[in-house]
Amino acid sequence: MSQRVEEKYRAIQRLTGDIKAPEVGVALSDLFQECLRFLRKVKCVELESKIPGKQYFAFELGKKISRAINKAEYNPDSNEWDRLLKAVQAGDASAFSIQDDTRAVYAAAISFCALIDLTKSGDQKTPGTFFEYLIGHLFASRLGVNPRTRLPVLNLDMDTTLPTDFVFDLGANRAKFHLPIKTSTRERVIQVWAHQRVLDGVYGTGRFIGTPVILAETKTDTKKREVVEICLPDQWRIYQMHIAQLKRIYYLDVPVSYARLNEVFPPLCVRPFGEYFVEVDTLISSPS
Amino acid sequence: MSQRVEEKYRAIQRLTGDIKAPEVGVALSDLFQECLRFLRKVKCVELESKIPGKQYFAFELGKKISRAINKAEYNPDSNEWDRLLKAVQAGDASAFSIQDDTRAVYAAAISFCALIDLTKSGDQKTPGTFFEYLIGHLFASRLGVNPRTRLPVLNLDMDTTLPTDFVFDLGANRAKFHLPIKTSTRERVIQVWAHQRVLDGVYGTGRFIGTPVILAETKTDTKKREVVEICLPDQWRIYQMHIAQLKRIYYLDVPVSYARLNEVFPPLCVRPFGEYFVEVDTLISSPS
Repeated sequence: MSQRVEEKYRAIQRLTGDIKAPEVGVALSDLFQECLRFLRKVKCVELESKIPGKQYFAFELGKKISRAINKAEYNPDSNEWDRLLKAVQAGDASAFSIQDDTRAVYAAAISFCALIDLTKSGDQKTPGTFFEYLIGHLFASRLGVNPRTRLPVLNLDMDTTLPTDFVFDLGANRAKFHLPIKTSTRERVIQVWAHQRVLDGVYGTGRFIGTPVILAETKTDTKKREVVEICLPDQWRIYQMHIAQLKRIYYLDVPVSYARLNEVFPPLCVRPFGEYFVEVDTLISSPS
Repeated sequence: MSQRVEEKYRAIQRLTGDIKAPEVGVALSDLFQECLRFLRKVKCVELESKIPGKQYFAFELGKKISRAINKAEYNPDSNEWDRLLKAVQAGDASAFSIQDDTRAVYAAAISFCALIDLTKSGDQKTPGTFFEYLIGHLFASRLGVNPRTRLPVLNLDMDTTLPTDFVFDLGANRAKFHLPIKTSTRERVIQVWAHQRVLDGVYGTGRFIGTPVILAETKTDTKKREVVEICLPDQWRIYQMHIAQLKRIYYLDVPVSYARLNEVFPPLCVRPFGEYFVEVDTLISSPS
């Protein structure tokens, strides 16, 4: 990545000790602006979408091509993002919009990921870490608490700590969120249900609300310039029935075959991430 | 890899449709011989072992260094391997030896993995696939049945198939084995327990005996020439208590801190792989 992008990224990293702080939002905005400046100079190429009802393109630089970008969800402009940040800071529930907020976060997330795709080789880690910062900041500042990544286990003669994905603890006798954050899941997704099962087992069922946040499940064939979604809906239903119950699965680009899981019985709630901002107060207080 | 090694490896791949067949054993022997020939010409370097009671070395070729090899477990000679193959083919339970059989399989496994480390860059997949063939053949020919990797799910209105690791079905009302095979596990190990939980949930607890086979958990710092074992024993205990029960965890190079799990209560049975050949008849028939 360019030196300017690198500097902006390092600025975020330095602030992640207090990820809910407004300064993290400002640093994320700076980086987003820088990515947009970079991408404005880069060529776009059409991808052939094998996904019903969705159109994709990619950025191209030299011999490199970025991940697939959903045309309808991508707005290369930071106005929506700035509005969302303001609404989150103000805690103004009436200012949220499921569709606009999902688009705002999608643009910020995919711009940086695409830039890394174009400027590094085989780097999956930086986009993944960045995506954790981005979602971590939004989730934390909406709730007003910072996440933890270790929990104490006190179970008879066991006295140890359990490393976890982000967990957000709203305090005694209040909801706790279990928040795995992934740019995509593929066959590794079973880990998300398994970690939820461990939390249910160690601390009691119902204490942690499992709400993973995932960017997309697209896969691009760079030679054929084709994009598909890699989804395992039957397996997800089996995991939800037999491992543990996730309350929501939020996506920035909801895969078509997972969206259908909302409509079968028992439903699996797969939602655009923007819904989080609107429904989180209900999730916290609803009985199940 | 060299053309001769590549040819021998392809020969195994062509036979994997019937992985229990004696021809697979012969092809594995051919490849093992070829690896030994290659490695005899390669320099060995000492590694500083941070693991109590274990000594390690590595092969070095040009700028590349292989994974760590346990000195006490590595015998660069195919006699023990040939003896083991014969015993497995004959189904002669008295011919097995826990220590010698573990060493025989360790040498065959780590020789090919080391060769790949020296001749390819960042190739984790080929050693992993090879290790599946190797353990798959031994497990299958000892049991006399081939593995499957998909199972039908018939659950009210669900009618689908579940992809699995190797499962060995001894027939109606008899034991079935669930056999994940990994060269190392690290933080991905939770998948093994999660898959066991799915099998218990879908088909009923006790129907599948979970017996993962793992090569080693060593990690080499190539600059410092130091080797450590990456282990998470407290987490394993939590997974075993809260996700599902694995019957055995077999290793070719048993990690020190996992070996100790045999001695705490409730024990987690972590054993050298050679024990499989000796105890499998008991595992099949014992009530739990």
